[in-house]
Amino acid sequence: MAPVLRPTPVEVSDSLSGLCRREVLLKPEHRQRTGSFKIRGAYNFVSRLPGGGEVVAASAGNHAQGVALAAQLSGMRATVFMPVHASAPKVDATRGYGATVRLVGEFYDEAMDAARRYAEERELVVVPPFDHPLVIAGQGTIGLELVTEAPDAATVVVPVGGGGLISGIAAALRLSGHPARIIGVQAAGAAAMKASLAAGHLVALERISTMADGIAPRAVSVLTLEHVESYVDSVVTVAEDELAKAMLLLLERAKAVVEPAGAAAVATLLAGKIPDADGPSLAIVSGGNLDLHLLSRLIGA
Amino acid sequence: MAPVLRPTPVEVSDSLSGLCRREVLLKPEHRQRTGSFKIRGAYNFVSRLPGGGEVVAASAGNHAQGVALAAQLSGMRATVFMPVHASAPKVDATRGYGATVRLVGEFYDEAMDAARRYAEERELVVVPPFDHPLVIAGQGTIGLELVTEAPDAATVVVPVGGGGLISGIAAALRLSGHPARIIGVQAAGAAAMKASLAAGHLVALERISTMADGIAPRAVSVLTLEHVESYVDSVVTVAEDELAKAMLLLLERAKAVVEPAGAAAVATLLAGKIPDADGPSLAIVSGGNLDLHLLSRLIGA
Repeated sequence: MAPVLRPTPVEVSDSLSGLCRREVLLKPEHRQRTGSFKIRGAYNFVSRLPGGGEVVAASAGNHAQGVALAAQLSGMRATVFMPVHASAPKVDATRGYGATVRLVGEFYDEAMDAARRYAEERELVVVPPFDHPLVIAGQGTIGLELVTEAPDAATVVVPVGGGGLISGIAAALRLSGHPARIIGVQAAGAAAMKASLAAGHLVALERISTMADGIAPRAVSVLTLEHVESYVDSVVTVAEDELAKAMLLLLERAKAVVEPAGAAAVATLLAGKIPDADGPSLAIVSGGNLDLHLLSRLIGA
Repeated sequence: MAPVLRPTPVEVSDSLSGLCRREVLLKPEHRQRTGSFKIRGAYNFVSRLPGGGEVVAASAGNHAQGVALAAQLSGMRATVFMPVHASAPKVDATRGYGATVRLVGEFYDEAMDAARRYAEERELVVVPPFDHPLVIAGQGTIGLELVTEAPDAATVVVPVGGGGLISGIAAALRLSGHPARIIGVQAAGAAAMKASLAAGHLVALERISTMADGIAPRAVSVLTLEHVESYVDSVVTVAEDELAKAMLLLLERAKAVVEPAGAAAVATLLAGKIPDADGPSLAIVSGGNLDLHLLSRLIGA
């Protein structure tokens, strides 16, 4: 996959290291093509389909752009269903990668229903946002990169929504023999993985409350829950004010535009929620597709 | 100097390439240590002084942080004079690198007068922000990096304030035989280099009007004017709204926090002010120390 990715080599953050009182490394996937890691899983899935056809997806954000670019790179068409309130820059960016965008429904679930109907009628494939081995393996290429880019990391902190990203990274690190602790982080108002781990089975949340829309599905999947049970050391949560503080520090000190989900791992380190270990702590900065009006409100607050 | 710098390898910007309708490369010095290229010149100057002593500087921003870190890395003390209205994050960052900050005067000129008096009384060295061969040579390390990182660049666009950055880069490129056109860019409301080139001698501006405080001195120097006359192809200007547009696009599409001066080269390309040449156009993104309240105002506008 390397030829289609932009290199995002791990970097030391002097300023965050000072603020967290430990060495902090960042994996800057907000600078990945499409502005998030989602291109990895989408491309790994889409590029294995027969060429020339059409793929379908539903997403309010990063997965939409990932699928659109993956299809473009694979010589396929993409039709992406997005909720009607999806932010204009995300819709424009998805169209910019050549996809046809259909605005359907108030929420993600309705857009996904429409995507499934559209795909069934035409016998097309829906690209899953996280619940598929090829998508998980694609996200796992980050873990393979960490083996060489951060061999001495003692802790790797990964934002968790549906769990595709942490499943891939944790499997890659564990199966490569990398010794780091692997910690997942969820927004406290959207902690479906943590609830499912506690229950020992899938738990769907009734209510979601977080600005971190990139990690806010109602439920994870059996596949990602099993990966997390097998390979991840623990899952913690962060509050909204901790996310906001991390986003502003990343802006001001690391010069990085990071969306709320993308700042979750850094927020966890800043909040001192993970005991120090004997080696650097690495935060996966998963995405940077930030609504500038949200940013403006955070600065003003 | 490599061991004290953070690598800032040249990267292709897909989104800016699309918007500018030519291949656009970025040299991301907003991710350099201290948030701008200024550490290069400051370190090249300060590290050659006898160790153990004290250096002095005056700056409202990036040079302050550059000198502070350069002194810390060289085992010296630094006293930095900043205007009383210098932004709190910049003052904090300068102190964070171990410098003693003295807040003196409404404007830079008064801070510099105070710095000179302080240095004379104690027989200390003032680190010049641009008017010195060692400072120019330090900034020129960017040019040396471009020789290997962007050998095929047909155009290199460089923000110009006092002219230290473009003097170093242009000398390095020309003396290395790199064939790129070298274009300087100034804010239209602070174009001392352009005025001096037109006059054939130093011209001091009576009035400065730009948000790009990183490239807004009243005058350049004989040394930098001579470098620009010898090595630079032309100097153009950008308007405030062009700077603002470039900053917001860098935020939204390149996930980069860039200050107004740092966005000047990208603004020039976006505004179509440079005829296309047969090869990529490279923009030096010189710094990212952006006042978040200015950012909030730009987003709201």
